Amino acid sequence: MNKPLILVTNDDGIIAPGIRKLVEIASELGEVVVVAPDSPQSGKGHGITIHDPLRLKKVKVFEGIEAWECSGTPVDCVKLAKHVVLKNRTIDLCVSGINHGSNASINIIYSGTLSAAMEAALENIKSIGFSLDDFSFDADFAPATPWIRKIMQYALEKPFESGNLLNVNIPKLPADQLKGLRVCRQADGRWVETFVEGRDPSGHPYYWLSGQFVNQDHAEDTDIDALKNGYISIVPSMHDLTNYKAMGSLKALEQI
Amino acid sequence: MNKPLILVTNDDGIIAPGIRKLVEIASELGEVVVVAPDSPQSGKGHGITIHDPLRLKKVKVFEGIEAWECSGTPVDCVKLAKHVVLKNRTIDLCVSGINHGSNASINIIYSGTLSAAMEAALENIKSIGFSLDDFSFDADFAPATPWIRKIMQYALEKPFESGNLLNVNIPKLPADQLKGLRVCRQADGRWVETFVEGRDPSGHPYYWLSGQFVNQDHAEDTDIDALKNGYISIVPSMHDLTNYKAMGSLKALEQI
Repeated sequence: MNKPLILVTNDDGIIAPGIRKLVEIASELGEVVVVAPDSPQSGKGHGITIHDPLRLKKVKVFEGIEAWECSGTPVDCVKLAKHVVLKNRTIDLCVSGINHGSNASINIIYSGTLSAAMEAALENIKSIGFSLDDFSFDADFAPATPWIRKIMQYALEKPFESGNLLNVNIPKLPADQLKGLRVCRQADGRWVETFVEGRDPSGHPYYWLSGQFVNQDHAEDTDIDALKNGYISIVPSMHDLTNYKAMGSLKALEQI
Repeated sequence: MNKPLILVTNDDGIIAPGIRKLVEIASELGEVVVVAPDSPQSGKGHGITIHDPLRLKKVKVFEGIEAWECSGTPVDCVKLAKHVVLKNRTIDLCVSGINHGSNASINIIYSGTLSAAMEAALENIKSIGFSLDDFSFDADFAPATPWIRKIMQYALEKPFESGNLLNVNIPKLPADQLKGLRVCRQADGRWVETFVEGRDPSGHPYYWLSGQFVNQDHAEDTDIDALKNGYISIVPSMHDLTNYKAMGSLKALEQI
């Protein structure tokens, strides 16, 4: 049997330690091709580049692995991978990450890592976003490694619902304190923001986004609860934003 | 009673004709404050600016209306409006648009217009994204005007479910052919992409995103179907991307 083809991307950029670890794990399970941003793209959400051309350059970053860096967003990377780099091939799995920092709860909509995974899912490619709850450049990905391998193996073997992706978040814990996997829903948390105001060297004002994640959802079936209790959270996610529950009460709008 | 406070934003930029029309309608219904991007931000999705400072400048663009242009994304605009420009005030409604081009179906996740509305909804502000199915700069917003006014009036008067927003799309039709409003779900369509490949003046290759929207979802309860039949589509939308239907079949993952 041919080796499965695994596309690897991220939003922290092609030289981040997190993607290096993901490439290492993926290359044990299949043929790996990397298409990742040439610079950090955190918080780019599902942004795409429409008004400018994109650059795509073959690079030697990972020993023995085909790798391309792209000037665009994480979603651009997936589009270029699908339509240019791997044009005539079938991608069996797309993995994005390992993100330096959690993408649990509402972070899925801001995250370039998860948006890349979402874009692959829209192309009917099985897709997983991995994130470690540690923003540090020197984050220790070792405790998470066997779990990431198992989840990728599962994804390669089992059928996925079309358009589905997995949002996997890993707590920052030593290996012997990681309790296992929990399938859960996205917690209803949000960011409470402040802007740091200042003056640039020319005396002009600027505003710099800062903020704190606040979880107001304390139910036990959420990703935040899983992480808090030492579990790796897995949220099956998709692209339909329709609020079906709200449709009934809005029917009155049709009569105005 | 005090006039309601209405925040107006968009993704086509503060000088686009679409936002001018929206400001005109909103100012008949309340006190309007505009915070909008200083340049076109189409396709920016839910992108935010983390690694750079933002600029915010008071401008005279609309006669008698407080207006600010911002160097960031549409979501940045809403965050700045909430936390800086209107810091100590209650925003009664946020309207985003009128977008030059449809944001029906999957376009909601790429659209800066809708992401701005989504961000307001996350802040528990009633929120509506308006889009006209006409990309032209000279698009005729007149036929849509009475409908937009009615929907805004409805939103100001009725309670909204927390975190909910309305994705309103208007077909490009003369007034006498607009049949009314239809509450519907997001059609399961997607973009089929190609990249235009070329060489820049220095001889280096570039890739420019191009593509075509394809709807594979031909049910009658979708926004695409409503638009096709001459109706204005209204999709109640929200931020929970959890695929609840997929949770059961994934439970096996907890045992690996």
